[in-house]
Amino acid sequence: MTEKVLGVLGGMGPLASAQFMMRLTLLTRASRDQDHIPAVLWSDPRIPDRGAALLGEGPDPLPWLMRGIDGLKAAGCGAIAMPCNTAHGWYDPLAKAAGVPILHIVDAAAADLRRIGVTCGRIGLMGTAATLAMKLYQNRLAASGWEIIEPEPAQMDRLVMPSIAAVKANRVAEAFEPLAEVMNSLASRGAAAVVLGCTEIPIAVQAGPADALRVPVVDTIDALARASINWARPGPSA
Amino acid sequence: MTEKVLGVLGGMGPLASAQFMMRLTLLTRASRDQDHIPAVLWSDPRIPDRGAALLGEGPDPLPWLMRGIDGLKAAGCGAIAMPCNTAHGWYDPLAKAAGVPILHIVDAAAADLRRIGVTCGRIGLMGTAATLAMKLYQNRLAASGWEIIEPEPAQMDRLVMPSIAAVKANRVAEAFEPLAEVMNSLASRGAAAVVLGCTEIPIAVQAGPADALRVPVVDTIDALARASINWARPGPSA
Repeated sequence: MTEKVLGVLGGMGPLASAQFMMRLTLLTRASRDQDHIPAVLWSDPRIPDRGAALLGEGPDPLPWLMRGIDGLKAAGCGAIAMPCNTAHGWYDPLAKAAGVPILHIVDAAAADLRRIGVTCGRIGLMGTAATLAMKLYQNRLAASGWEIIEPEPAQMDRLVMPSIAAVKANRVAEAFEPLAEVMNSLASRGAAAVVLGCTEIPIAVQAGPADALRVPVVDTIDALARASINWARPGPSA
Repeated sequence: MTEKVLGVLGGMGPLASAQFMMRLTLLTRASRDQDHIPAVLWSDPRIPDRGAALLGEGPDPLPWLMRGIDGLKAAGCGAIAMPCNTAHGWYDPLAKAAGVPILHIVDAAAADLRRIGVTCGRIGLMGTAATLAMKLYQNRLAASGWEIIEPEPAQMDRLVMPSIAAVKANRVAEAFEPLAEVMNSLASRGAAAVVLGCTEIPIAVQAGPADALRVPVVDTIDALARASINWARPGPSA
């Protein structure tokens, strides 16, 4: 068997990883079990908090991330997807050490923006304070011609960060309304689309009525799943 | 770190495995990532069809299942859950070779029946033709005092088996109505509860209106998730 096996470095959070596996499956063209993509999910919720580490307020997750990559390589995985945006702050050292490709979630989001026809102009970005502060998206997307706007600091504190924490604590439904408010406010400021640059956010967004949102969204769980399918099954079927 | 890591031998089908990871997460008492249970999911949809093998019509999945167990042990897993009922036809050789406990899905279902107060009497059983034919549930549950009734052969051919195949092909919604018809027919024949003894069936049952069902169900994905949480976190919190 020479088929490609996808490694998924997850647990950050575990609900986002499970959702990634679900969407990887549902987005794959398949008519029976054997048509689906072999994958190993390393779901390690013990990985120290990425946001706290970036702020210098917690232990370094890098050794834990490296251990996951070693485990996935030992299992025979030929590429790795990390369904956690903030963990991409350690992308460079991980990619250097991995020896197999790590599919970058921002590249996946850019491909998804193009897929829905938003090829340039102003877009909104939502994510953890750490992801926004490290300019993960801003640098990579601005180089491709998009102009990025972000929630106001008060919206981050009052609406976005508490909603992300609620999803990590399994309180999904209550996170919808505050996130929708922020998304619609980005739309009012001229965003042609909003990138959900934190894998907890799409989980909450799915829990509410779709017609409450006045702007198209790029779900980075789905975007990374599409990039993974494209890696495993290159060609028009992806 | 001495925390227990759960191994999940999945891909049979991949949607059921992803749903298992989702339910494992949602059923765990947690207020942040680090409270969740570390787990490795080995999702190998290439594992040959279990039903066909039991009927002597396809290759033996045992070497593939053994390879998954070896991979999960190498990743440090201390127990294994298999969110596929039919794969439990190979439980004995796997348990013998594994060297770590494999949580039996029928024991998990029995615990769930007791949890909802159905401690004896007549219950309905749905599953693949192979699972029913190998008496996986009947032998184990009859020994504990339940009387098992099954769908009629014509219902299996016309309603149950096509619905399971539809879920494996990602056509979830269309599987609800035929399965609900069979569940309600088991209720009419006196079943106090229906055990969904195939991990594809609960996925379809969730896709329809809950009030269409006239009988309580035991979802074997949830039951196995509860057994897994109980293994990782023994005590009243499970």
